[in-house]
Amino acid sequence: MPFDIKDPNYKEKIEDSFYRQDFMNLMGVKLTRVEPGFVEVQLDYKDDLTQQHKYFHGGVIGALADTVGGYAAFTLTPPDSTVLSVEYKLSFLNPGDGEKLIARGEVIKAGKKLSTCSANAYVVKDGLEKICATALVTIMNFYNKSDH
Amino acid sequence: MPFDIKDPNYKEKIEDSFYRQDFMNLMGVKLTRVEPGFVEVQLDYKDDLTQQHKYFHGGVIGALADTVGGYAAFTLTPPDSTVLSVEYKLSFLNPGDGEKLIARGEVIKAGKKLSTCSANAYVVKDGLEKICATALVTIMNFYNKSDH
Amino acid sequence: MPFDIKDPNYKEKIEDSFYRQDFMNLMGVKLTRVEPGFVEVQLDYKDDLTQQHKYFHGGVIGALADTVGGYAAFTLTPPDSTVLSVEYKLSFLNPGDGEKLIARGEVIKAGKKLSTCSANAYVVKDGLEKICATALVTIMNFYNKSDH
Amino acid sequence: MPFDIKDPNYKEKIEDSFYRQDFMNLMGVKLTRVEPGFVEVQLDYKDDLTQQHKYFHGGVIGALADTVGGYAAFTLTPPDSTVLSVEYKLSFLNPGDGEKLIARGEVIKAGKKLSTCSANAYVVKDGLEKICATALVTIMNFYNKSDH
Repeated sequence: MPFDIKDPNYKEKIEDSFYRQDFMNLMGVKLTRVEPGFVEVQLDYKDDLTQQHKYFHGGVIGALADTVGGYAAFTLTPPDSTVLSVEYKLSFLNPGDGEKLIARGEVIKAGKKLSTCSANAYVVKDGLEKICATALVTIMNFYNKSDH
Repeated sequence: MPFDIKDPNYKEKIEDSFYRQDFMNLMGVKLTRVEPGFVEVQLDYKDDLTQQHKYFHGGVIGALADTVGGYAAFTLTPPDSTVLSVEYKLSFLNPGDGEKLIARGEVIKAGKKLSTCSANAYVVKDGLEKICATALVTIMNFYNKSDH
Repeated sequence: MPFDIKDPNYKEKIEDSFYRQDFMNLMGVKLTRVEPGFVEVQLDYKDDLTQQHKYFHGGVIGALADTVGGYAAFTLTPPDSTVLSVEYKLSFLNPGDGEKLIARGEVIKAGKKLSTCSANAYVVKDGLEKICATALVTIMNFYNKSDH
Repeated sequence: MPFDIKDPNYKEKIEDSFYRQDFMNLMGVKLTRVEPGFVEVQLDYKDDLTQQHKYFHGGVIGALADTVGGYAAFTLTPPDSTVLSVEYKLSFLNPGDGEKLIARGEVIKAGKKLSTCSANAYVVKDGLEKICATALVTIMNFYNKSDH
């Protein structure tokens, strides 16, 4: 489904906003792809990101899912807008057992006030990608309001 | 609703497990209350935990909600058991604008295979507690399986 | 938490709207309580409402939860407004085994654009009420728009 | 993703179970496709299925989503098994404005104890299909237990 691009500088907007999230920097998340209605991030394993069985913590996976959902919606809003998560729902499918996490967010419906996004998280082990969580994310769009 | 306590050492079990989650230590989360079917954690503000508007990141709030849901369920399982999050759903109610987060998880239904928990997150600003998110968390219980 | 009442005729508004939902009439749902930020409905058992084990169908329980969430939010909006469900999440806690369902919706946060509600469904068996499902419901408020 | 078929009579099993749900018959839902890990149902418009604006009621849409999620999981379980919905989360994307609803459920992860399914509902207007809701559904599998 081709999306209408309202901000020609959406890539710069997303990159600028993304790295102003100190929590993403604390975890070490990298923004790896930005397309209209789509965002991908990656995160290498480190012990600091684990739960008690030394897998990626569910909270890390949830944070990535929430983030890629929000930024996927943000690719489609006009200049001088910002977004906020309203809610998300995350189902864990497989343990976060691997050397890297990849999360991909995609807009399902870009509404005026609200956007609904799907977000999937994958764990990479020995180079093989396996889905570890899937989420639905509701995002509210705010206009005439800076993201800064 | 009074719960049946199957592990007399549930407090030690929770404390031991909680601090083996490196991700909780990275964020600086403290376990502040453990009761049958109930767990509370607290987390002081630091820049490392913020999103682009310098509020607590939604991913931090979600991680706390997921965690207190899981540990609330874990207070009620027998020795030699462990728990895993199946899924959670989180609604954001107010921005995470304050000096501290408190999250409280509570078991709604303690089933044999699955437990359903409610988790609420509060942000404390100038000493006043305000709800910032509410979640429902589904937890799977595993028996004859170590948490280590 | 006391709510601000913006429509003094909120009870009439809810009753009028509720019974214009043909699907509620098909199932036989009765609106039994309307308070600021709170709505209760009841539904007597009949075979037509069952799943394959002859319990109340999960879809019936979900429909009641969605409905009481929406109407709880609608009690708090001004005249010339209407509401729409954005999303809901429902956890089943016990089978719908009984002679009656009761669902109660309650506003957790009454926002300008969105309201977040909690909805619980109870099954009554031999006169005893038991929770069978709990839900979180997100409702969008529309102003200067008729509910008709 | 090809699924392992554990019950060669899965189609008959699903059809038999589906039409024993009196609530589906009350609404008039037809089971239109059954594949391994996939189920589709259809429902023609009638006034009895509407909310106050005469669109398909959200509760109807939710009931279909829940149902196709559960039956998609049920296609993959062995003989002498049954399934139960644990929880579902549904996001409404467009109003249920049309002459027919179609809901399609698909297994994302077929686990031993739990299966996670995605369910999408479409409204058909003037012959054109448009997505109206998307859901994630968690299903519990029970073995050595009859569906009757």
